[in-house]
Amino acid sequence: MSAETLTLRVQFPGLAGGWHYLDTAATAQKPQAVIDATVAAMGRDYATVHRGVYARSAEMTLAFEAARRRTAQFLGGREDEVVFTRGATESINLVAQTWAQDNMKAGDRILVSTLEHHANIVPWQMLRDRIGIEIDVCPLTADGAIDLEAAEKILDERHKLVALAHVSNVLGSVLHVEHAAKLAHNVGAKLLVDGCQAAPRIALDVAAMDCDFYAFSAHKLYGPTGIGVLWARREILEDMRPWQGGGAMIDRVTFDETTYAPAPQRFEAGTPMIIEALGMAAAMDWLEGVGLERALRHERELTAVLRRELAARNDVTVFGPEDSLGIVSFALDGVHPHDLGTILDEEAADGTRVAIRAGHHCAQPLMDHLGVPATARASFGLYSDESDIEALLKGIERTRRIFG
Amino acid sequence: MSAETLTLRVQFPGLAGGWHYLDTAATAQKPQAVIDATVAAMGRDYATVHRGVYARSAEMTLAFEAARRRTAQFLGGREDEVVFTRGATESINLVAQTWAQDNMKAGDRILVSTLEHHANIVPWQMLRDRIGIEIDVCPLTADGAIDLEAAEKILDERHKLVALAHVSNVLGSVLHVEHAAKLAHNVGAKLLVDGCQAAPRIALDVAAMDCDFYAFSAHKLYGPTGIGVLWARREILEDMRPWQGGGAMIDRVTFDETTYAPAPQRFEAGTPMIIEALGMAAAMDWLEGVGLERALRHERELTAVLRRELAARNDVTVFGPEDSLGIVSFALDGVHPHDLGTILDEEAADGTRVAIRAGHHCAQPLMDHLGVPATARASFGLYSDESDIEALLKGIERTRRIFG
Repeated sequence: MSAETLTLRVQFPGLAGGWHYLDTAATAQKPQAVIDATVAAMGRDYATVHRGVYARSAEMTLAFEAARRRTAQFLGGREDEVVFTRGATESINLVAQTWAQDNMKAGDRILVSTLEHHANIVPWQMLRDRIGIEIDVCPLTADGAIDLEAAEKILDERHKLVALAHVSNVLGSVLHVEHAAKLAHNVGAKLLVDGCQAAPRIALDVAAMDCDFYAFSAHKLYGPTGIGVLWARREILEDMRPWQGGGAMIDRVTFDETTYAPAPQRFEAGTPMIIEALGMAAAMDWLEGVGLERALRHERELTAVLRRELAARNDVTVFGPEDSLGIVSFALDGVHPHDLGTILDEEAADGTRVAIRAGHHCAQPLMDHLGVPATARASFGLYSDESDIEALLKGIERTRRIFG
Repeated sequence: MSAETLTLRVQFPGLAGGWHYLDTAATAQKPQAVIDATVAAMGRDYATVHRGVYARSAEMTLAFEAARRRTAQFLGGREDEVVFTRGATESINLVAQTWAQDNMKAGDRILVSTLEHHANIVPWQMLRDRIGIEIDVCPLTADGAIDLEAAEKILDERHKLVALAHVSNVLGSVLHVEHAAKLAHNVGAKLLVDGCQAAPRIALDVAAMDCDFYAFSAHKLYGPTGIGVLWARREILEDMRPWQGGGAMIDRVTFDETTYAPAPQRFEAGTPMIIEALGMAAAMDWLEGVGLERALRHERELTAVLRRELAARNDVTVFGPEDSLGIVSFALDGVHPHDLGTILDEEAADGTRVAIRAGHHCAQPLMDHLGVPATARASFGLYSDESDIEALLKGIERTRRIFG
């Protein structure tokens, strides 16, 4: 275990004891700094935003809008392009139920890929069922990355949207976003990027990536549950009609007619996720304090080590590309992933327990493609280190002995 | 100040110092018990729900589903009738965009009232703009309660939904929900109740009230931001199509076809508000620990005292019925509510500051009805006491001296 990683690990109260947490792709543990920010926002500093004439509320409003600026800075966009949502799933549904519904018609097409998370499939299917669009599926390369050469061949002027994961939540495959944006824009389509697994691992710059929509969740970014982000290019966002009606998103309400606030407020009906926004900003501060360059290097190294160690076993199949990031899916011959996960969770003789994910990872079409009902998945965070890999490998060996 | 109230007040870190917080109708301060539950959920106990094969995730799943049972118990419904939403606004939008959209057609009518919050107006206007329904507005009695006799005259078989506030967020007027339900059901309409201001003040029993939908937000219930509840009668909820697509709400996904999970999971796409659900359950525990009978009595008493004291001044107009609950809107002659709010916020000679709300309170149609652009509003919580009223009255007197 490196001293550097240990320094980070002690900041996470969720990681106390001999627990090797390798399920960060599902949700990240929270550093003390995020918990402290939450406690202050819930207690000492608590007030509503945008509507109070008293100082505490004015201060909370400043902090809340500072969290929006912080988010804009984190992803390389403008403050007025940042919509706070419940999470990435809601971000994508918002686009599907407003922009896509209003800018697409029967016969228009959306391109997604085989490896998408259900959150980047089901909203488009629901839209298909409502308005009769078609969904094309971009295949994967042999090693499990989105095949942009194939995408180029599929795309034509009927495509209005391309919706792809920046980093696969199952395989760790990394999308070349600039390239995808170019292909989409060549046919006049917009590019939506599901950034849930990228945001904690790759320094974002939506301007440089040239995408049109970018979505992620705070809880995978060492932040709170209950909040996420939709970033949308300004000229797109300001033309989008509101999705949910209520307080804070209106300009003037009468029973005859209601006029709406400008974006992004137009998309934030009701009392917002005040505590969560401050917690998310604290998570971004913490993550950038550690450094996203360091995060990327750290996760790349751990991923490479784990892939190499697993590949060295003749009873393990490792899925995904060699250069995958932070996430490793694999199969142990003759052992169902759930059984592996269960045995890893049992306390070993040295007192350690290992948490991995076993299942379809909300990516059933990818499971169908891989020809398995489920995979075992280990995923890393900034608190992960080689001791987690050692514990996993020991656990796999123990499982091997049990199953023979 | 009564010793009993003081005992409660020290549990609220947001109320330290000489701060008289009279804006609980906007959002309630959080007791230490809710903050402690949040800290445990974010740290020591943190894991995702529903998908982990390891013990921590299984335990968190139990706690999360226990929060759903807790909520069902809190409102007198069944566990499988409780949908966790982002807040009451989202709850109402969910009903508008699924049940109402699918069960209403052009020419059908919805009845709301003059005193509704924008969250219970704008979603229906957006539905009207989409599918051509009509919105009727139930007038108020002379003292500012929803006039159910008038409602009875308006309602006919064209009405499919009646949507009313249980307690007005401006006037504190209390709706007789059972009566409203009977009127709605007499013409075959459903009753949706906006319970934001009632849930913290009145022991709920959706079965006894015989409503069909009930919505509230946790942050007004001494709980976290970012979470609320939609309760819907089982037979209605299980027929409702999903609104947002994503993980956790599906049964099986292929690119050709997707099948959905049963309610309520069908309405909870994506990683849910895990930390917030546990925080909301802690808030319900805390509130029922104090006792809702006591809450009701306490707020009734404070409301009556404040109304009496304000009515004794010849320069104050008090709005709303005599039996209003927890919330008092008023006007000070010749002083704009914002100026009053600002002066109250300034530290008085005795070191006290008073926080009230001044504005339209997200109820512009009611302001139009009252013939004012804004009101001053004082609202109580369980931590409120007569010292808050004294500070407010002193502040009004000070304002009077300033404005002459």
